[in-house]
Amino acid sequence: MAKSDALPLIELAEQFAKLPGIGMKSAQRLAYHVMEMSEGEAKALSQAILNAKRSVHTCRVCMNFTEHELCKFCADARRDHATICVVETPKDIAAFERTKEYKGVYHVLHGLISPIDGIKPDDLKIKELLSRVSEGGVEEVIMATNPTVEGEATAMYISKLLKPFGVKVTRLAFGLPIGGMLEYADEITLYKALENRNEI
Amino acid sequence: MAKSDALPLIELAEQFAKLPGIGMKSAQRLAYHVMEMSEGEAKALSQAILNAKRSVHTCRVCMNFTEHELCKFCADARRDHATICVVETPKDIAAFERTKEYKGVYHVLHGLISPIDGIKPDDLKIKELLSRVSEGGVEEVIMATNPTVEGEATAMYISKLLKPFGVKVTRLAFGLPIGGMLEYADEITLYKALENRNEI
Repeated sequence: MAKSDALPLIELAEQFAKLPGIGMKSAQRLAYHVMEMSEGEAKALSQAILNAKRSVHTCRVCMNFTEHELCKFCADARRDHATICVVETPKDIAAFERTKEYKGVYHVLHGLISPIDGIKPDDLKIKELLSRVSEGGVEEVIMATNPTVEGEATAMYISKLLKPFGVKVTRLAFGLPIGGMLEYADEITLYKALENRNEI
Repeated sequence: MAKSDALPLIELAEQFAKLPGIGMKSAQRLAYHVMEMSEGEAKALSQAILNAKRSVHTCRVCMNFTEHELCKFCADARRDHATICVVETPKDIAAFERTKEYKGVYHVLHGLISPIDGIKPDDLKIKELLSRVSEGGVEEVIMATNPTVEGEATAMYISKLLKPFGVKVTRLAFGLPIGGMLEYADEITLYKALENRNEI
């Protein structure tokens, strides 16, 4: 890219490079691709960014992304509002919905406690969860954060805060993934599978 | 992503997925990242796309990207305008400029002849190159397309068209890359290195 010549192209590449998982080389390739788009296509991409940012916000109750005041789960009377599944990101909700088995509602933390990245409990939507539970009507809170150090720590932290409310707090089961092979399972997964073995 | 709920978010992911090298999973991740950006950051990204598309176009002479009528190489009287280096994309110019050795000007084809992808000679900036050469003053045209089937075919095709103009047409040398190891060189590279050996 000719420096000090096609400056807007360099600026665009720098913008792309700020996105997660996109290095400077990929960003340049994307910028050149934009140059090959039609005016209409470039406008559509540009507008989609603004549209998403402007019209999508978090659900008043569960912090999931939505265009409305309440997300479609919180607004759905057929869902079980006494069961709350606590997840890290809105993406995780899609994973649970794919199981077609979960009928409760959700709560999105928008992150995990991570001292290394400077993410404190106050940066997450924990207060909102506590106030939801304190309003009553909640029977079970399922901690569905990832089985990582941060996910575990966040689940433990929140479960302690929930104790005084007298609700049942559960954690996702860990074990062998279905279709996985014993010989490829890592030690911790295998240990968890052994520890949590069930009578058949 | 909750379907029929945060629609602009799905639309944004679909726009990102149209970019080269970005699959649907990455596109969703990027869309969620946009939601975490500040309003100002999202605007900057959106605007950079429009700016690049609107204010950057091809140089009237060499088809490189520029904001001006002539790119900085074509507008530079200190460059050797009798030597034209023919490249596939504007990105390739940056590679030559990094050598700090090349003092001539460029011509960007914006693609390579590729029957398999339906890219015909007419789709490239070949006419523009011929008209540049026909205007006189050009002594050498260096074919600097990649050493691939398409790059070779395009170089051969253009060199035949340039013959009648009586200009010198050269091709980049192929051989061992500097710093490379003989034992890791592929057969064709080694064959080329042997064939083009020089007396020392």
